[in-house]
Amino acid sequence: MSRALSKLLTTQGKASVRDLDAVDLHTHVYLPRYMDILRARKDVPFVHPGVGGERLIILPAEQQQLEQQQQSGGISAGRPIGGEYWDASNKLRYMDRHGIRTSVLSLANPWLDFLPLEEQIRQATLLNDDMETLCRESSGRFLAFGVVPQDSTTAVKEVVRLSRELPHVRGVILSTAGLNGKGLDDPDMLDFYRAVDRAGLAIFLHPHYGLGNEHYGKYGHALFLALGFTFETTAAVSQLVLSGLLDQVPDTLRLLLAHSGGTLPFLAGRLDSCVEHDAAIAQNLQHAPSVYLKRFYYDAVAYHEPALQCLIDFVGSHKIVFGTDHPFFPPAQDNKEAPEGDKGGGEDLSELDWRSTLANYEIMANMSKEVQSAMLRDNAKKLMGI
Amino acid sequence: MSRALSKLLTTQGKASVRDLDAVDLHTHVYLPRYMDILRARKDVPFVHPGVGGERLIILPAEQQQLEQQQQSGGISAGRPIGGEYWDASNKLRYMDRHGIRTSVLSLANPWLDFLPLEEQIRQATLLNDDMETLCRESSGRFLAFGVVPQDSTTAVKEVVRLSRELPHVRGVILSTAGLNGKGLDDPDMLDFYRAVDRAGLAIFLHPHYGLGNEHYGKYGHALFLALGFTFETTAAVSQLVLSGLLDQVPDTLRLLLAHSGGTLPFLAGRLDSCVEHDAAIAQNLQHAPSVYLKRFYYDAVAYHEPALQCLIDFVGSHKIVFGTDHPFFPPAQDNKEAPEGDKGGGEDLSELDWRSTLANYEIMANMSKEVQSAMLRDNAKKLMGI
Repeated sequence: MSRALSKLLTTQGKASVRDLDAVDLHTHVYLPRYMDILRARKDVPFVHPGVGGERLIILPAEQQQLEQQQQSGGISAGRPIGGEYWDASNKLRYMDRHGIRTSVLSLANPWLDFLPLEEQIRQATLLNDDMETLCRESSGRFLAFGVVPQDSTTAVKEVVRLSRELPHVRGVILSTAGLNGKGLDDPDMLDFYRAVDRAGLAIFLHPHYGLGNEHYGKYGHALFLALGFTFETTAAVSQLVLSGLLDQVPDTLRLLLAHSGGTLPFLAGRLDSCVEHDAAIAQNLQHAPSVYLKRFYYDAVAYHEPALQCLIDFVGSHKIVFGTDHPFFPPAQDNKEAPEGDKGGGEDLSELDWRSTLANYEIMANMSKEVQSAMLRDNAKKLMGI
Repeated sequence: MSRALSKLLTTQGKASVRDLDAVDLHTHVYLPRYMDILRARKDVPFVHPGVGGERLIILPAEQQQLEQQQQSGGISAGRPIGGEYWDASNKLRYMDRHGIRTSVLSLANPWLDFLPLEEQIRQATLLNDDMETLCRESSGRFLAFGVVPQDSTTAVKEVVRLSRELPHVRGVILSTAGLNGKGLDDPDMLDFYRAVDRAGLAIFLHPHYGLGNEHYGKYGHALFLALGFTFETTAAVSQLVLSGLLDQVPDTLRLLLAHSGGTLPFLAGRLDSCVEHDAAIAQNLQHAPSVYLKRFYYDAVAYHEPALQCLIDFVGSHKIVFGTDHPFFPPAQDNKEAPEGDKGGGEDLSELDWRSTLANYEIMANMSKEVQSAMLRDNAKKLMGI
């Protein structure tokens, strides 16, 4: 066990990681119904029946790689996808091993964005009902963010239905494309924001498309995930803030930003300064951008202490919730049979230590017990009504 | 005076901002020779003789705006450009007022990138010689970063000449496009990095092109400067790190990153994690990305304390140098005559307080005297051989 993890356990008064009693607000699932959709497709996003196990092909570049590899017999395109993505018992074993008492599940990207609208509407209802059933049967281990179709009117209706009929669904996950695919600053989003606020739900804002993707091709997924995702969130939320739409929404709207807000906690001062020096933009806003940013919630999926501390310094520890991004960033698998490092979903990853999860515990090690407890569980309980 | 500024002065034992004795490593100048180039042009970048004073048109979108406004009689395209951009006495008055003892000047973007290569080669020599003269005649108030043409072979020659013949030029400013316009990770850059290291010079890496520009159009310059610039630096440096080129360059290479490294201090942990989880990328590198990032120097142009603290937590205060980004982000000017907030370069801005400069003092207020002094002047003196 790392020194940092040991320090966290000592401060928390726990004997083992298994006892940490955390609430994970950033944890994904591909529901079986969603897997069926992906398995039936031949274009991005889809699941390909690979040689060493199924593979998830989610980016256009991965599809091209797959097509090239099918000629050469390789199997490393995309990523291996196994039970950790869809099997609730697998998720529970992973949770037990890593001290997670409750997971607030969300469908993983790209959600419904790729489906025709009428299919989005139909599947959103079915998937949200599936999610409710899964949570209800979990003895309190699962809650969920639901999904909405990319259409303001039906999305508002589904938000109302979630709040009235699906008690385990406590929010919705939203793509940076927003509804209508026109971004979070599209005026048509106003009704949705107001409806979510009225319903007492939360929005979990999550990237998928990447930003600056033309720069990342040489470097596998690494820069797409490290930079493309975080830039995407940063830009989308900055557009929302600068649009002035938030001046027309109650400040009680609960917006949770993935990956510690992308880069917003670091750039907030520069954003304020740039707006202050652009009178035409500043005059559209009641407040400096950072005032709005401080209303939001952020997960602690930051992977190093300087970033988490920056986030705490910026918004305060009462706005930060633990997250893992499970089942992404899995432990390295036995790769004897796969030349480029992935075997496919044959192994039970829930029986391994997940470095990515432990890293997001370790970055809390030097904080006070109160701050740790707020981020590990207390804030999430308040935000999700647990 | 703000409470933070007052606290900084108290900790530093100074009576006034004028006494702060800072060294500014991020401060730009458009040398008169360079202004002549810009004034002679009609395409981006160029200087337009506006109604209320000259205006700098630096982005394609600004040129479009200018063309539209010329039909309607407006003058708000681009930004006003006055003596603060090219007049050394103006810069000195600004420095005196803001407690800056020494400025290490650099040509502002877009440097020479837009000129044909033979013209770049010719102008680099002339501009570097101009810069040397300006510094030599400044009684120790100015040092400089030089410019190099975008060609490895001539750039290496100019680096050697700078180090042998121009004693006031202590480094070179470099665009994220690198030499050859193929980025910092282009293998042809290796000779240049090695030559800079051998010459004992520093590279000041600075953005110009923006990244994600398709998202910023609705919001003036604000998002282009706040996000586009910082994303650009982040991506370019990440590509350099992941390329493995730095394993072939002495670790004494002195690389100074503009705007506190873009977003790298915040994202470094995520970058490490994403590389660790991509075996094909990780195996090309001797170290985790953050190991390389910690070798670099960063300016303190961060605009809020959480970001500066994040930077300190990540690289240590011995790697951080004060900067202002003067003459960009000027004080608001009297705008009675200009409908959209800019008057043009008629006013002597050196007689005003620059909020953007003071902000980058204020963010140091809560740090120890030793950490402040390191960032305000001591580190810069070591790095620049003052």
